[in-house]
Amino acid sequence: MTNNGKLYGIGVGPGDPELITIKAVNAIKRSEIIFAASSSRNTYSLAVEIARPYVDIPDSNIHMLPFPMTKNQQVAETAWQANSQRIANELRNGRTAAFLTLGDPTTYSTFGYILRSMKSVMPNAAIETIPGITSFHAASARLNRILVEAEESLLITSGAFGGDRIRQAENVDRVAVVKAYKNIKDVNNALKETGFDQDSVAVSHCGRKDEAIIHNLDQLESRHPDYWTLILGSKTE
Amino acid sequence: MTNNGKLYGIGVGPGDPELITIKAVNAIKRSEIIFAASSSRNTYSLAVEIARPYVDIPDSNIHMLPFPMTKNQQVAETAWQANSQRIANELRNGRTAAFLTLGDPTTYSTFGYILRSMKSVMPNAAIETIPGITSFHAASARLNRILVEAEESLLITSGAFGGDRIRQAENVDRVAVVKAYKNIKDVNNALKETGFDQDSVAVSHCGRKDEAIIHNLDQLESRHPDYWTLILGSKTE
Repeated sequence: MTNNGKLYGIGVGPGDPELITIKAVNAIKRSEIIFAASSSRNTYSLAVEIARPYVDIPDSNIHMLPFPMTKNQQVAETAWQANSQRIANELRNGRTAAFLTLGDPTTYSTFGYILRSMKSVMPNAAIETIPGITSFHAASARLNRILVEAEESLLITSGAFGGDRIRQAENVDRVAVVKAYKNIKDVNNALKETGFDQDSVAVSHCGRKDEAIIHNLDQLESRHPDYWTLILGSKTE
Repeated sequence: MTNNGKLYGIGVGPGDPELITIKAVNAIKRSEIIFAASSSRNTYSLAVEIARPYVDIPDSNIHMLPFPMTKNQQVAETAWQANSQRIANELRNGRTAAFLTLGDPTTYSTFGYILRSMKSVMPNAAIETIPGITSFHAASARLNRILVEAEESLLITSGAFGGDRIRQAENVDRVAVVKAYKNIKDVNNALKETGFDQDSVAVSHCGRKDEAIIHNLDQLESRHPDYWTLILGSKTE
């Protein structure tokens, strides 16, 4: 029996600080060190800011981990391993660590890469994942719109690589496309080709002060949507 | 300008009381009357019990609304209209009302029927939907398992009507099947036929004291799973 610490993978929700769970707040309170993914530009973490109204987090407890945006799989995996090594060092010193992530930690999240690389870096690590509200649930709620009901099925996919996953999926009633930014033109075309543009709507920065709701997806294209944009589409009605 | 009240549609999460959001707790505190869906058998509401550790809710403020489990569309719609009428009466009296639901109110939820029927019963009603953690996010977190990542797509569907929605959907990487109970044999067959039985797992009563994790779906069949059972499946690895 060792005195190893524990890692919490914590979803803080989609942006609105009130959409954090009580479990997430309690786990952050128990954590001696807070990790979050850094963008290449600065050390600001929206995930950390969401937790601040509920937990006093000294800046010295916050450590930013780099997740390079790259298509080079080896560069990415080297970074994930290094990040997991840093977390593992804390756990081996008996410390309780939290990795904060926006939305949900099992849904298109950097925490997924940590979960995977911790398996090789520290196979016996105690890890507890705490779910969070996703952007597509927040957007559906914001619009008083059903995400999925009765016998319908829903496709959750990412627009980061274009619209082909939308084109390929058949016989699904509704769709939620996260990261509808870089490849918005192809995503838009795919939604039209597959009939998912019926009753479709885009939401950007849901629950934050710069929130925007765009009902015309062609308008969305000309707005040059950013990373925080998602689309809800439907074939029904 | 009238003095109408407001309706909150509130997701209290998947069962673990800690998985309620701060926004849900605050909205329940502001509500003078609490509605929840009743089963045919009794007036117990798990959704209300989840909120009780955080909010003092007098029993006299709780009103159970019947949602008959029927394939008769007319019987169902009559009940939805009557429920919305009861809610509308409270709003017209200037009261703040909450409708509590397990999981998320836009995801296979009775609140969807309220949203729809309120449109005809009281078109100008002020309604705010507050999202909740779904069972499939809770189960993925419980298992430290990725729900969906990178360029993968995920099918969310219901097993309540059998496995055909699983069979029909093509070119999807992962699947989450809620309500995997009544038609478990057909759901199971559909998962095998489509290759989604790779790396599959069922979770029952996730985050509650009678939680069970079943890695062999054939065993799941012989256990006669109940309403609170869902399956996570994958074609990858």
